[in-house]
Amino acid sequence: MTQKIPIGKLAMLVASLTPVELEPFSAQLKDVEYCQGKAGSMNMQKVISAVETAGKRNHIISEVLYRETHALYHAILEALEGVMRGQIGAGDMMRTVGLRFAIVRGSPYEQFDEGEWLAVAFYGTIGAPVKGLEHETFGLGINHIG
Amino acid sequence: MTQKIPIGKLAMLVASLTPVELEPFSAQLKDVEYCQGKAGSMNMQKVISAVETAGKRNHIISEVLYRETHALYHAILEALEGVMRGQIGAGDMMRTVGLRFAIVRGSPYEQFDEGEWLAVAFYGTIGAPVKGLEHETFGLGINHIG
Amino acid sequence: MTQKIPIGKLAMLVASLTPVELEPFSAQLKDVEYCQGKAGSMNMQKVISAVETAGKRNHIISEVLYRETHALYHAILEALEGVMRGQIGAGDMMRTVGLRFAIVRGSPYEQFDEGEWLAVAFYGTIGAPVKGLEHETFGLGINHIG
Amino acid sequence: MTQKIPIGKLAMLVASLTPVELEPFSAQLKDVEYCQGKAGSMNMQKVISAVETAGKRNHIISEVLYRETHALYHAILEALEGVMRGQIGAGDMMRTVGLRFAIVRGSPYEQFDEGEWLAVAFYGTIGAPVKGLEHETFGLGINHIG
Amino acid sequence: MTQKIPIGKLAMLVASLTPVELEPFSAQLKDVEYCQGKAGSMNMQKVISAVETAGKRNHIISEVLYRETHALYHAILEALEGVMRGQIGAGDMMRTVGLRFAIVRGSPYEQFDEGEWLAVAFYGTIGAPVKGLEHETFGLGINHIG
Amino acid sequence: MTQKIPIGKLAMLVASLTPVELEPFSAQLKDVEYCQGKAGSMNMQKVISAVETAGKRNHIISEVLYRETHALYHAILEALEGVMRGQIGAGDMMRTVGLRFAIVRGSPYEQFDEGEWLAVAFYGTIGAPVKGLEHETFGLGINHIG
Repeated sequence: MTQKIPIGKLAMLVASLTPVELEPFSAQLKDVEYCQGKAGSMNMQKVISAVETAGKRNHIISEVLYRETHALYHAILEALEGVMRGQIGAGDMMRTVGLRFAIVRGSPYEQFDEGEWLAVAFYGTIGAPVKGLEHETFGLGINHIG
Repeated sequence: MTQKIPIGKLAMLVASLTPVELEPFSAQLKDVEYCQGKAGSMNMQKVISAVETAGKRNHIISEVLYRETHALYHAILEALEGVMRGQIGAGDMMRTVGLRFAIVRGSPYEQFDEGEWLAVAFYGTIGAPVKGLEHETFGLGINHIG
Repeated sequence: MTQKIPIGKLAMLVASLTPVELEPFSAQLKDVEYCQGKAGSMNMQKVISAVETAGKRNHIISEVLYRETHALYHAILEALEGVMRGQIGAGDMMRTVGLRFAIVRGSPYEQFDEGEWLAVAFYGTIGAPVKGLEHETFGLGINHIG
Repeated sequence: MTQKIPIGKLAMLVASLTPVELEPFSAQLKDVEYCQGKAGSMNMQKVISAVETAGKRNHIISEVLYRETHALYHAILEALEGVMRGQIGAGDMMRTVGLRFAIVRGSPYEQFDEGEWLAVAFYGTIGAPVKGLEHETFGLGINHIG
Repeated sequence: MTQKIPIGKLAMLVASLTPVELEPFSAQLKDVEYCQGKAGSMNMQKVISAVETAGKRNHIISEVLYRETHALYHAILEALEGVMRGQIGAGDMMRTVGLRFAIVRGSPYEQFDEGEWLAVAFYGTIGAPVKGLEHETFGLGINHIG
Repeated sequence: MTQKIPIGKLAMLVASLTPVELEPFSAQLKDVEYCQGKAGSMNMQKVISAVETAGKRNHIISEVLYRETHALYHAILEALEGVMRGQIGAGDMMRTVGLRFAIVRGSPYEQFDEGEWLAVAFYGTIGAPVKGLEHETFGLGINHIG
């Protein structure tokens, strides 16, 4: 049951590195399916929606199965806990986020039956709705899927 | 007030990359002070203590000023929100963590008066107290200091 | 995608009804796998452990697959949010619980591909560690599995 | 101080059973005052308001005493913790709920002086704002009143 | 329904002022029943227990009625939210508190039927388990009782 | 490192006392910088904004340094935890607040290097959006600054 593919770490790298910085990890990224996107808002609902839409459009999750949307939703929510650091409800409290996100789907465990898992990572800035009044923020969520 | 040094991203990289993977970032790391360490426990108190001790022993924060311990403590707590994803109190609830952590101290903003800031990152695994029954976890906290 | 089997409601009934009261639901219960048990403690860790052990011993979840333990763990955690009502960390704060629990595994959705889901329900009392100084409490968690 | 009337269990049954299923509990329900209603929304404020209005219109709580509104409000909030499972603030985060609720008022304890208590139960579905992309949810709150 | 006696403010003053500073409020304090005490611990359970014991010994609440213990317990819990600022579970996470507390019972509202209410206030320090590495903290909880 | 000026207690007194009641504390208040203001809303965002604006207009914090806004923001957030008692997200959930607030900036510690700290206190009422259906609420947040 050892973990052979660090889907969470790969999601973090895709969300936060520049294309040049990501280069050395291209071999590892061949073992997984992934996509990335951007979400900037003061409204958590829009952030969640942006990730779900990206996951479906890029065929990382099924567009028709609720169980896959359910798995992704909870991975997003866990990642947002890291972004908001205990203040998810505060998502509408005057802080604005500018985030890049990554969704990674793969089979992290050696044992075949452990199947597929999902990682969602956010990286960007959070702060007052004034440019510059902000600092970095990050979040990662992991869930089983499939 | 543009951010020139991504102390949070650097903390995440130090916490999660292998020495070889970290190589391309060595130039960026020269602009900050940092240290790393390990913490593995089912007890959040011990995890916090391990980071505080490392921060003081490696002279990332002052050993005698409470305001620096206060700044580090809240950065750790924010990072642990990401690790525990909303269940910090659950730290003693049967999940065990095996974490690498990094503390980065630097001046991320171009404007001189914004001064020094602190980033704390955790990367590792969280799960049942049985080897293999675990998945990756990440957390990042940022605070002003100095 | 309409839901045909209310696994959450069935879990609630198994956890809270007497055998006689449960009688009229015996036909519905034939459509799912389920087990029940008891957990009484001031320590959330022991409550979680009791449910996980019951789930494995009664073959509701696999004893060897981490993904099934992961699914059950998060269903338990969600159910405990209802039991503790926002104070999960408070599990060790002088309140004692006397709980019956039920785990139900089934295929609630009409569409075949939605597969199996898990429901965990707790019903019992929570209060000061003095007999009688307590009131009822309930919690339900749902997750996809398999 | 033994509990003779399980007002919480009765509230759950009223909230989740069909009229036919509820039949066997009609004798027990004669010992309490209760009402039921429906609330469907993406907005927690409207859900709370629906329950408070039902409680007053059906004379379960006083329309003029703040202490009774206060007791009901906190029972609703505790029940919503179960419904939202730790994400009450997330009530406005893209999830939509379709809930039946029940309010039960009675004297659960044998000792006369323990007086009246209130139980609020929710049962229904929570999920993405697309029909079918949802699963069951439950919540129960208890408070002293009168 | 206007509030004539600010039981919360009085509890705050009793918990935080010196006897000399409290002098000008002695007339107002004659309208309520109150007691004070001390609690210093890293363990929330002990803090709660100290307040409950003080409330009973000083006859602020009944020693035999669960509904009064229930009312006090939730007022304490609300006050501790202020003390711990969202990290109640963190009560066992290396922070130590040195608190004075006050319990005030009175009839704050002009309308007779609003009856008695309870206020619990904490004031003191919270910090690392090293003398001086700490800052002030405060919390207030209000509940209906009687 | 003993604390010589209780900035938190002073903030609470400024937020809750009448001018006459505050008179005996005028000597202590000469040791700190402070301001006060009012915020009444069902929207947490507006409450936060009111305090930040008051802090800048009264020159308690710098209008141009993000690190000072960051310090104040987290002190406000901690104070709001006390006001909302664990339901910050509930700020938009039908409860309305009428608050007076105070910001105090000073050097609470004897050791010179501990520098300046900030205290934010709220005092007022919280309740249903109907006059009279409300009770008192308090919150205090402390942070290092400068």
